[in-house]
Amino acid sequence: MSHLTLALDVMGGDFGPRVTTPATLKALEQNPTLSFLLFGNQQQSAPFLEKIPPQYQQRIQFHHTEQVIDANASFSLAIKQSKNSSMRLAIEAVAKGLADGCISGGNTGALMGLAKLLITPLPNIDRPALTSLIPTMNGQSTVMLDLGANVEVNKKQLTQFAEMGNLFAEVMLDLVYPRLSLLNIGTEDSKGTQLIRDVHQHLRTRHDINYQGFIESDKLLNHLTDVIVCDGLSGNIALKALEGAAKNIISLHKNPESSHLCLMVKNYVMKAILYPYYRKLQKINPDRHNGATLLGLSKVVVKSHGGANEKAFFYAIEYAARQVQSQIPQQIQQRLVHL
Amino acid sequence: MSHLTLALDVMGGDFGPRVTTPATLKALEQNPTLSFLLFGNQQQSAPFLEKIPPQYQQRIQFHHTEQVIDANASFSLAIKQSKNSSMRLAIEAVAKGLADGCISGGNTGALMGLAKLLITPLPNIDRPALTSLIPTMNGQSTVMLDLGANVEVNKKQLTQFAEMGNLFAEVMLDLVYPRLSLLNIGTEDSKGTQLIRDVHQHLRTRHDINYQGFIESDKLLNHLTDVIVCDGLSGNIALKALEGAAKNIISLHKNPESSHLCLMVKNYVMKAILYPYYRKLQKINPDRHNGATLLGLSKVVVKSHGGANEKAFFYAIEYAARQVQSQIPQQIQQRLVHL
Repeated sequence: MSHLTLALDVMGGDFGPRVTTPATLKALEQNPTLSFLLFGNQQQSAPFLEKIPPQYQQRIQFHHTEQVIDANASFSLAIKQSKNSSMRLAIEAVAKGLADGCISGGNTGALMGLAKLLITPLPNIDRPALTSLIPTMNGQSTVMLDLGANVEVNKKQLTQFAEMGNLFAEVMLDLVYPRLSLLNIGTEDSKGTQLIRDVHQHLRTRHDINYQGFIESDKLLNHLTDVIVCDGLSGNIALKALEGAAKNIISLHKNPESSHLCLMVKNYVMKAILYPYYRKLQKINPDRHNGATLLGLSKVVVKSHGGANEKAFFYAIEYAARQVQSQIPQQIQQRLVHL
Repeated sequence: MSHLTLALDVMGGDFGPRVTTPATLKALEQNPTLSFLLFGNQQQSAPFLEKIPPQYQQRIQFHHTEQVIDANASFSLAIKQSKNSSMRLAIEAVAKGLADGCISGGNTGALMGLAKLLITPLPNIDRPALTSLIPTMNGQSTVMLDLGANVEVNKKQLTQFAEMGNLFAEVMLDLVYPRLSLLNIGTEDSKGTQLIRDVHQHLRTRHDINYQGFIESDKLLNHLTDVIVCDGLSGNIALKALEGAAKNIISLHKNPESSHLCLMVKNYVMKAILYPYYRKLQKINPDRHNGATLLGLSKVVVKSHGGANEKAFFYAIEYAARQVQSQIPQQIQQRLVHL
């Protein structure tokens, strides 16, 4: 496997270097061919960087900067204050060819805006789409795009999302002729907006795409399809609704207020009884699916959840590394140019 | 409390009279002022009708029909085959003034289509909106509309949804100056489509509405607002995503494959331990929030979930009865005409 370099915004996300640095170490341990360009505040990162053993230090280059984009800043303010920020420097490193891809857990709007501004888009793609692998109940994944980069799209753009998602599923999920569906509010031909119906009619004529028709958002987790295509407004709303429901329901579970049994006995018995449940829940743990990529650019740009823990951030790094290794941008350019 | 009559599609929903008839009995028991016009197949309903004690029978009029709209029929086919169907007869009873409101668990598209066709719309409302009370984690409810009646709306229509939802929350949730939010994919002014931003700017100027700004779909269950306003595409996608997530996660819980303990002991211990969890879960049980109303018509029309059980269908009946008693359509007509 060839050597690859990732640029990383150390300061991005709710926990900054406390999470990003140990996740980097984990990635270095597991991928001997991986190097990192880290961008962030040296003083704040030092306590965490010191814990990285010397044999891994040589695969890290740290670039100090004082500037950080506020996670809650509005898009325009974030772009204004982006100069020399850890996020912008990471993206610039990719744009200049110093790194093969970048990862940040920082301000989503700023990351998407800067990536679109600084990284060459693929010539055959109108608009990049925010793309994730979403977890399904059977422990598999479904590709979903767009998750929020484009709130208003046209037929050509939505069709390009379908083409990119199709290729992404082939490569990242190792599928032949992946099933592809359009998100809609019903499964009949007459449902949805004119745009959705137009793309539906078009995809039906495409023999290179294994088009399954419409899918409703209550089926997103059921692995009935491999690629779910939608505009950024619908996709963002669907995904966040899923996340909110999952978080809320799991939070109920974590705090049972029982006082029926002595605490120790209770904990032991709960573990024994609930083990299979936790094991199943583990399968759909969002940590393992952290990372959204801006598909349609000439380089790999991955957004981690702001609230990602060390393990989740590690998965976002892996997600970026796999895309670089699989040459996703190059494949999109080659494949889609032939259509 | 004045006497009221509800028309009921006995055949609608996945279980037909098996569910709708006992739910009707429960409603009769709990509401001495309530009568029913039931529409459905006499033979199929007889075994369930017989179980209704004589003192309640007198508040029921059963109208036999052989016709039933297929739950899975396309909209156009459903409308074509609707003549003399149990659903259409129930709606016609309301349109003719024989009943004050109607409830059906049948084909959603057909119910919305027939209701719009047969029941006079309120003169000051462009488009009726599918409206529900959605359960929140603290055991309260939030009004949400539109949930799928209008996939494409304009500024005026979305503003009317806000006005209707505002009044609905005041009356049905007994709130003074309810908090109202617009569903969007972020909370900054710059987020979302031009339409969402336009309505956002307008609602900010309205002193008669306690406008809170944008809300994201991961917060729907957290009771951060009392009314959530959106177009029918976004609303349907958000709600179904919530439902799908809840169903899937709860299904994990219901089938723990544990074989660590003797089954009886396990069940007893699980009940003891999980009681507080179930009690909390009970609060957000969708059964208690079954029923979506087509707000903006001159009469009350309620859609029950097709898969509703007896208890859930009973709640849909209660939901319709409360709207009739509170004179929701009349209040919308009076209030909105003054704007």
